[in-house]
Amino acid sequence: MLKASSDRIQSRLARMAEIGRDPAGGISRLALTDEDKQGRDLLVEWMEQLALDVRIDDVGNIYGRREGLRAGAPAVMVGSHLDTVPNGGVFDGAMGVVAGLEIVSVLNDAHRKTRYPIEIVSFSNEEGARFEPSIVGSGVIAGMFSYDYIANREARDDGARFIDELERIGYLGRRGNRPGPLKAFLEYHVEQGPRLEAEQLRCGIVEGVVGFAWLNVEVTGQTDHAGPTPMHMRRDALVAAARITTSLRDIASWVDPELVATVGRLRVRPDVINAIPGHVVLSLDVRHANDETIESALTSIRRMIQQVAEQEGVEARIEEIKIAPAVRFDAVIIDALEQAAHELALPSRRMVSGAGHDAEYMASLAPSAMIFAPSHGGKSHSPDEWTDRGDVVAGSDVLLRAVLKLIEVEEREDSRSG
Amino acid sequence: MLKASSDRIQSRLARMAEIGRDPAGGISRLALTDEDKQGRDLLVEWMEQLALDVRIDDVGNIYGRREGLRAGAPAVMVGSHLDTVPNGGVFDGAMGVVAGLEIVSVLNDAHRKTRYPIEIVSFSNEEGARFEPSIVGSGVIAGMFSYDYIANREARDDGARFIDELERIGYLGRRGNRPGPLKAFLEYHVEQGPRLEAEQLRCGIVEGVVGFAWLNVEVTGQTDHAGPTPMHMRRDALVAAARITTSLRDIASWVDPELVATVGRLRVRPDVINAIPGHVVLSLDVRHANDETIESALTSIRRMIQQVAEQEGVEARIEEIKIAPAVRFDAVIIDALEQAAHELALPSRRMVSGAGHDAEYMASLAPSAMIFAPSHGGKSHSPDEWTDRGDVVAGSDVLLRAVLKLIEVEEREDSRSG
Repeated sequence: MLKASSDRIQSRLARMAEIGRDPAGGISRLALTDEDKQGRDLLVEWMEQLALDVRIDDVGNIYGRREGLRAGAPAVMVGSHLDTVPNGGVFDGAMGVVAGLEIVSVLNDAHRKTRYPIEIVSFSNEEGARFEPSIVGSGVIAGMFSYDYIANREARDDGARFIDELERIGYLGRRGNRPGPLKAFLEYHVEQGPRLEAEQLRCGIVEGVVGFAWLNVEVTGQTDHAGPTPMHMRRDALVAAARITTSLRDIASWVDPELVATVGRLRVRPDVINAIPGHVVLSLDVRHANDETIESALTSIRRMIQQVAEQEGVEARIEEIKIAPAVRFDAVIIDALEQAAHELALPSRRMVSGAGHDAEYMASLAPSAMIFAPSHGGKSHSPDEWTDRGDVVAGSDVLLRAVLKLIEVEEREDSRSG
Repeated sequence: MLKASSDRIQSRLARMAEIGRDPAGGISRLALTDEDKQGRDLLVEWMEQLALDVRIDDVGNIYGRREGLRAGAPAVMVGSHLDTVPNGGVFDGAMGVVAGLEIVSVLNDAHRKTRYPIEIVSFSNEEGARFEPSIVGSGVIAGMFSYDYIANREARDDGARFIDELERIGYLGRRGNRPGPLKAFLEYHVEQGPRLEAEQLRCGIVEGVVGFAWLNVEVTGQTDHAGPTPMHMRRDALVAAARITTSLRDIASWVDPELVATVGRLRVRPDVINAIPGHVVLSLDVRHANDETIESALTSIRRMIQQVAEQEGVEARIEEIKIAPAVRFDAVIIDALEQAAHELALPSRRMVSGAGHDAEYMASLAPSAMIFAPSHGGKSHSPDEWTDRGDVVAGSDVLLRAVLKLIEVEEREDSRSG
């Protein structure tokens, strides 16, 4: 049985982790920076060592193709991304790309030909840390963003345009290099959540990605001196925002056990110790695998916010920033991955991803699914992000096994004749 | 009867309000800036026009003295401050200085001599907006701050030292110019709260200043991705901070109707829409006229914070920033002011100041008290700060009447001989 090499995977992960190592901790390999270029160069070097046919498209996605025997057959694509958030982890993105390379290494070492081609991909700017929005490389080729919109996005740090930075680092390729027809897309990623570890499972079979709603709530009360203003005469925007924050948690807990809702950003004005805050802006992030559940929760949330505002004598203006519908992955690919995990006797569960991934957009181009490796303590986007060596290779083997079936490995000549 | 001139008061307030007028709204005449220097120069010009003996002390406090008849008699001091917060109002501080000048103008116009000297004062850096802490000019001469500590404070904006800036604007005077023995200190200020207006009163007789406690609470939970982390597995520092904020309000409302408690500052990390906040720092401001009430409220607040922290699985570290005891003003001066308001048939009430003022520290140097003018909508530290013209002069007349009694006005020669 063909097996992934844990040493080779760890060695590639370690080499990639040298690029963008941040003195402040973790890895800072933000999209279209010099560090991203070095990461990309290393990937291209690896792809060429594996005799893959490398091409770059107009969004800077990097593809390495291993040809199949059947003429004109659609490729099976495997991969993820190499960019990180600031002070991010070693595994987020890179593990999925390295696991893809591992499949090719195994096939090459075993001198196996396959009926269907396999393409390893690293998508541009999945994190959205330097250029907003996120998940851009897969999003553009899937038609979720117009090319002009993305090409003209400006970097948060220095205002440089996306397309100019892509050209500067040498990864502005041709539109004709986008993928042709695909038989499947598979992505292997770290869970970025605590469930697998908590349930002592080694692999998550990802059936889909939650939908989410992002809202901003602007609360306007009245700034007053904290001393001379009696409690009953206040219009305190922060007290109102605090009630919205705790009530949001209540609604999330009560509507559905799988619903999550978070206030991630909260800014206070004037932000002075002896002033009653007159103005607060807070963000809401609401997620669930079922769009109707989100819609129903949003109805309660809007009602709650207006009630709090009335009771506190403040005004609350709600603005929708982004609504993304839930994505369901392909049943055949899900089954192939689950079957592979069973054959390898790996304790696994089906789950829905709470975070967005390239596979979410690729699902509109090809039958897609994902697997997750456990994240220690659920941590990601942090120097503390960690997945055990044994879990990394276990998931790689699940991926390998599922991909081998999809690309239809030919029997080796020596085994036929032997 | 000697009366203040509303026109003269308004004219001086209007001229002072031209200095530091901010294109962004209101008045920005921050301590020891070029604008502060212009305001000080105008005050000195006015003092000299009124034939006052001007002197500057080593903290930059400006005194203008009108001599009394009785040799070696202690002075009655009247005044406030000229510095403002950024985008502050016209009245906060300046009204008290102008009302002091008005007393001298009235005495000069009427050619009255007094037994006791009167000194008009403008204290340095009452607001603490550019140099922390606040209430520095009176605080240093009252021995609340050491001279070296204040002299070496650095400006928030450009890091310049207090003493260097004082010298630069030409207001570094001599220590020997600090006031000698004082018979009384009186300060006229805007209420900066909504009570007088709400009760349709025209004058507040201020019996004292609340004590206050300033605390910082640092809440540490765990930053996680907002998508993949189920609600029951979170350690959300912002939800904990929100519960602390609403419970603080509950405690303030329940412990004592006069207790006020405010979260003015709140900062979230990482402050990202799709991240569960792992770290929040919030400030607490707790005030009451009775120190024991504050102490008892703090006991409940500390207990509440630890309970919330335990329930939310976060850590909460409480740091005391500053504890200032309540100040009670002098019964004789309070009575003189109340008597004056009654004689003028002005609807007034006794009250405790919720905000700090120079009189708070001056109370340790001399029998002191204050009066308040109503603030429209309770607003201050804002371009919207407003006190009606009629209320400004009414309070000035109360101040004038009380001061005239304290300095013992001689009968005019013409009325004696007439």
